[in-house]
Amino acid sequence: MNKFGNLYSFTSFGESHGPTIGGVIDGIPAGQPIDLDRVQRELDRRRPGQSAITTGRNETDRLTVLSGMMDGLTTGTPIGFTVTNADQHSRDYAELRDIYRPSHADFTYQTKYGIRDHRGGGRSSARENISRVVAGAFARQILERLGITIYAYTSRVGDISLQDDYTLYDPALIDSNAVRCPDTEAAERMERLILDVKRDGDTIGGVVTGVIKGAPAGLGEPIYDKLHAMLGAAMLGINAAKGFDYGMGFDGVTRRGSEMIDTFIPGDVIPRTATNHSGGIQGGISNGADIYFRVAFKPVATLLRQVDTVDTAGRSATLSVRGRHDPCVLPRAVPVVEAMAACVMLDAILLDRSRRSF
Amino acid sequence: MNKFGNLYSFTSFGESHGPTIGGVIDGIPAGQPIDLDRVQRELDRRRPGQSAITTGRNETDRLTVLSGMMDGLTTGTPIGFTVTNADQHSRDYAELRDIYRPSHADFTYQTKYGIRDHRGGGRSSARENISRVVAGAFARQILERLGITIYAYTSRVGDISLQDDYTLYDPALIDSNAVRCPDTEAAERMERLILDVKRDGDTIGGVVTGVIKGAPAGLGEPIYDKLHAMLGAAMLGINAAKGFDYGMGFDGVTRRGSEMIDTFIPGDVIPRTATNHSGGIQGGISNGADIYFRVAFKPVATLLRQVDTVDTAGRSATLSVRGRHDPCVLPRAVPVVEAMAACVMLDAILLDRSRRSF
Amino acid sequence: MNKFGNLYSFTSFGESHGPTIGGVIDGIPAGQPIDLDRVQRELDRRRPGQSAITTGRNETDRLTVLSGMMDGLTTGTPIGFTVTNADQHSRDYAELRDIYRPSHADFTYQTKYGIRDHRGGGRSSARENISRVVAGAFARQILERLGITIYAYTSRVGDISLQDDYTLYDPALIDSNAVRCPDTEAAERMERLILDVKRDGDTIGGVVTGVIKGAPAGLGEPIYDKLHAMLGAAMLGINAAKGFDYGMGFDGVTRRGSEMIDTFIPGDVIPRTATNHSGGIQGGISNGADIYFRVAFKPVATLLRQVDTVDTAGRSATLSVRGRHDPCVLPRAVPVVEAMAACVMLDAILLDRSRRSF
Amino acid sequence: MNKFGNLYSFTSFGESHGPTIGGVIDGIPAGQPIDLDRVQRELDRRRPGQSAITTGRNETDRLTVLSGMMDGLTTGTPIGFTVTNADQHSRDYAELRDIYRPSHADFTYQTKYGIRDHRGGGRSSARENISRVVAGAFARQILERLGITIYAYTSRVGDISLQDDYTLYDPALIDSNAVRCPDTEAAERMERLILDVKRDGDTIGGVVTGVIKGAPAGLGEPIYDKLHAMLGAAMLGINAAKGFDYGMGFDGVTRRGSEMIDTFIPGDVIPRTATNHSGGIQGGISNGADIYFRVAFKPVATLLRQVDTVDTAGRSATLSVRGRHDPCVLPRAVPVVEAMAACVMLDAILLDRSRRSF
Repeated sequence: MNKFGNLYSFTSFGESHGPTIGGVIDGIPAGQPIDLDRVQRELDRRRPGQSAITTGRNETDRLTVLSGMMDGLTTGTPIGFTVTNADQHSRDYAELRDIYRPSHADFTYQTKYGIRDHRGGGRSSARENISRVVAGAFARQILERLGITIYAYTSRVGDISLQDDYTLYDPALIDSNAVRCPDTEAAERMERLILDVKRDGDTIGGVVTGVIKGAPAGLGEPIYDKLHAMLGAAMLGINAAKGFDYGMGFDGVTRRGSEMIDTFIPGDVIPRTATNHSGGIQGGISNGADIYFRVAFKPVATLLRQVDTVDTAGRSATLSVRGRHDPCVLPRAVPVVEAMAACVMLDAILLDRSRRSF
Repeated sequence: MNKFGNLYSFTSFGESHGPTIGGVIDGIPAGQPIDLDRVQRELDRRRPGQSAITTGRNETDRLTVLSGMMDGLTTGTPIGFTVTNADQHSRDYAELRDIYRPSHADFTYQTKYGIRDHRGGGRSSARENISRVVAGAFARQILERLGITIYAYTSRVGDISLQDDYTLYDPALIDSNAVRCPDTEAAERMERLILDVKRDGDTIGGVVTGVIKGAPAGLGEPIYDKLHAMLGAAMLGINAAKGFDYGMGFDGVTRRGSEMIDTFIPGDVIPRTATNHSGGIQGGISNGADIYFRVAFKPVATLLRQVDTVDTAGRSATLSVRGRHDPCVLPRAVPVVEAMAACVMLDAILLDRSRRSF
Repeated sequence: MNKFGNLYSFTSFGESHGPTIGGVIDGIPAGQPIDLDRVQRELDRRRPGQSAITTGRNETDRLTVLSGMMDGLTTGTPIGFTVTNADQHSRDYAELRDIYRPSHADFTYQTKYGIRDHRGGGRSSARENISRVVAGAFARQILERLGITIYAYTSRVGDISLQDDYTLYDPALIDSNAVRCPDTEAAERMERLILDVKRDGDTIGGVVTGVIKGAPAGLGEPIYDKLHAMLGAAMLGINAAKGFDYGMGFDGVTRRGSEMIDTFIPGDVIPRTATNHSGGIQGGISNGADIYFRVAFKPVATLLRQVDTVDTAGRSATLSVRGRHDPCVLPRAVPVVEAMAACVMLDAILLDRSRRSF
Repeated sequence: MNKFGNLYSFTSFGESHGPTIGGVIDGIPAGQPIDLDRVQRELDRRRPGQSAITTGRNETDRLTVLSGMMDGLTTGTPIGFTVTNADQHSRDYAELRDIYRPSHADFTYQTKYGIRDHRGGGRSSARENISRVVAGAFARQILERLGITIYAYTSRVGDISLQDDYTLYDPALIDSNAVRCPDTEAAERMERLILDVKRDGDTIGGVVTGVIKGAPAGLGEPIYDKLHAMLGAAMLGINAAKGFDYGMGFDGVTRRGSEMIDTFIPGDVIPRTATNHSGGIQGGISNGADIYFRVAFKPVATLLRQVDTVDTAGRSATLSVRGRHDPCVLPRAVPVVEAMAACVMLDAILLDRSRRSF
């Protein structure tokens, strides 16, 4: 089930050390101008080797679009695309053929499938996220023409955290630093923390905050495909994600209802609310206010130090990872969160349109 | 999209003040003995009017199974079922025809559909959860024969919280109190808090913790249908849910990777781990350890006091709710969380079996 | 997989001798007036016991709608519905518990599921078609407001056949006779043939022709969900259906391309064609012309005479059917063909709308 | 909706004159040895330019597999694949930018999408069938290890027709001639007819017969995904297909039930039938007998002569096709029919396995 989405969907393929990562976008509306340079720039934001706090794997991640466009416009037929893997160091992974890395997908893939591509994590590698970023970058350009904008940022690394209120931060500053944190002072501290952690051969987790502005009221499909359930499933499917909440989320559970309801402002047939504790969604359907959410990312399990583990026969083994890895996934997770949000929103719009205008 | 699940699925129908809530379970394995009395007992755990801290609506919620069984066994054909709504007080809701309750689905349904059933929240009512509980109760009995057990409990109400470690608590005590909290001392405090809040005409949120024991390694479908993404989508679709995490979740983001990896215990071809920070899932696939997760529930927005709001023309209006509501959804959310977890796990098993034994 | 359709879908349940046949319609557009008396009349056209040439089972097939409507309008939420089975003579079927009827689903259900409801064919009974007729009758009323009309008729019984050209026949005459054939003279001969066959304790097959008028150009989803592939799958899923073709279909294979192309008539930006050999679909997408198709139905296998067969242990057995059966399914298949066509067309419209108006 | 299949599925992309045709196979069982040379040979059977009676377009159609395999085995992860388009003569199609070819998808694509790739039919070109052949060739190798074999052959071209009984013909002779007809004498006549038709600048239709041997009893999902409905949808989705029937199909409608029932042969717990009028499927589920079916193909609409038509403004226009086209699609449709049958059968097996072995 390597397909994501309902009406706007994509199906991805590719392993970390195979020749190519790619996919097919299906259901894209026709006649849409798509700036492929902008799609490439989204890939550049995700690509490895972009700064000192990301993996040293050196990939240019150049996108090739194989179908579905003519004269710069989508034709409504599927968008096939590929990105070549160039800088595989598969020898670095030879010893992993017979070893299970702890807290990785090695053992679970082997158990599920009876076989696995051990090189660089195979299919479980975050390189698969390339397909998400491409599909999201196409969606985002369509959403923007509909007045919907999406951004995400690193709001926490370890115990360095921004304030919960996203309106305090200027999205224009997100890409001003390697951490992708709009508070440049906090970003510096985060970056130092990541470098410290890296020096220790260790890793660190954090939180990405996502914001969707301009979504019209009415998006989301009750009962089981509530807009936040679709967003949550999308985010929880990202590598290393461990949690999702929206609006006041986990922090709202200690509050009383009277503190949390978002009172309508009288005066408009399509009323706005005075506050937005709800996170822009009521009963699973957008209400026109900003949608905001958080995604928790664990510290990744690939330590750059010696680790005790077992081999595939269950015997003790020692592992010294020589591969190149991120000490903290947050900076490169930001464009993936944005991409998945874009895919969900365009899918929700298409689902909603199917019911409209009778 | 009132269908949930892939291979084990159910489709539900019904409104709060319609004649009937019901649904169809599709994809149930054939030849499975199902104890319908046990299914009814799960409904009894969810039904309104069961204690002083739940809504006063009085429903017996008697299940009728209309198809798919013979001689106490499933036949593999769909299970149609209904539960009659008996105690609707639709007059209590007459004034809601032209009023939007704040932080409810009134406005969003009206905007999406151009029409809504205003009586008791219509389709957005938690009475829809009946269908989930039925589908989950069928699934649970099949899972138990496969050695998989599921339980959930109220782990937080407002600022009264259990410890995070679910192994500290005895699931046998969950139903020993109205709050469904296995720490009876904390349960008492939670119950008092809920009664206080109710007396104030207010509401309060909390957290439900869910635990799945006995799941074999190998369940979950990469990439986008990771087991925790399926669980998350299921939980986030429950009324009033605002967040989901699993394993160390949001609390794990401050840790270092070296603290969080679950080292394998040597000695077995199917190795177990010494710790379980991961929550029983690696790369989206179960690893044989316990799966545990949390669901955040907001304080519901129906206050039993006068509230300022707007009518459907956008004019100021005052709302005095006369309906019967829960001051805290947690106690009755527990069986819904268990039910949705059961549906996801059986679905994951069926998906996994489709790929096995070649 | 008891669900049919994508965006306009229904899920059905129920066995021939269970208490109830029913289902859930999902994805129905909101705000649509539905005349439930008309829905009932479609059920009346399908119900048993309506004439001397159909089964003697006496069912009134009264529809109960349980959800999804308010004040005569759809609300966009799912339509739950039931029809009670009243006239089961399950004793007539007791001997079938251990016998496989030849050319029935007894053996295949038993093999697939390891269990089967032997009473009246269980789930494989044509009573399941009730759900299709209900879902189709809802769809049809919405389609009519969009200018799309659908009719079907018996065009062949045994070797009595109408001409292929549907335009020769007046659809107003279809229900003027028990066979549902718009050529009243041929209808008489067909009726006599069916009565002769019945007297012999035998059965006879035939062909239903379906016509869809007023469909706009643009419906149908390439590549695999071509409009005619969706129609074909729908028709082939009807009990006793053995074949489907559209346009010139099987008869067109002997022609040359130069005889078969439908030349455009100049003068309009949305051009019409001078002929319609194609059956209103090009490349899987409707072109605005009439869509016409044929469905072949076999003579059903339930003979009212003694038949040699085997029991579930593989031993010789003799079967004397005492149940009540149709000597020819065609008259009662006509409303089912119409219903399935209506479901497909509304689904195709919703799919198409999801891509429009950007 | 460029995805075909449920559990064994593929999603395709690519246009006739784009750089690449390709796709992604999802859900393939892991650990399966796949001989890629055999996959290539299936592509060779479909490729253009293989004989005097097919299009002169010269493509080598070399397959590149990009993921999902290691050491010759499937890993259970998706199979991404591409085939490069080499011999596009896009200039031949320049005039088609503003002209609608009669009985082609030009007008319908333009109306649906508001834009179309006019070069070589764009997405509606039969080159898309490459993806089907690849997905089918993978499936076929897995099916063969399960004892299931599939073959198809040209059974009719124009008015030259084989007998209906497929058991009269030796499948080993199918590829002994360019028409892919196992009756070599009839094949010669068919070939002469096709060459005659080609000389006239005309085209001709025909019928492909498909046979599936060795399928176990129990495959197919009632009610709406009956095995023959899945096969029918698959076949009707192939370019130029106009009809599908199975078993006695359209010819059976004139028979009486007593002539058509397939009596069981006593003596076995899993009984076989003495005849096979049913075509190996009862109630939508395979019964262990051979499955056989027919697919009707129209004479394609691309005539190699001058044709009157309209331009996109609705004005009269004249069309002189200079592209290279098949005078008869049958020879190259045979491997596509086989491929789609293989995809359906593997999908049905995976669906069935998901319900088994509890």
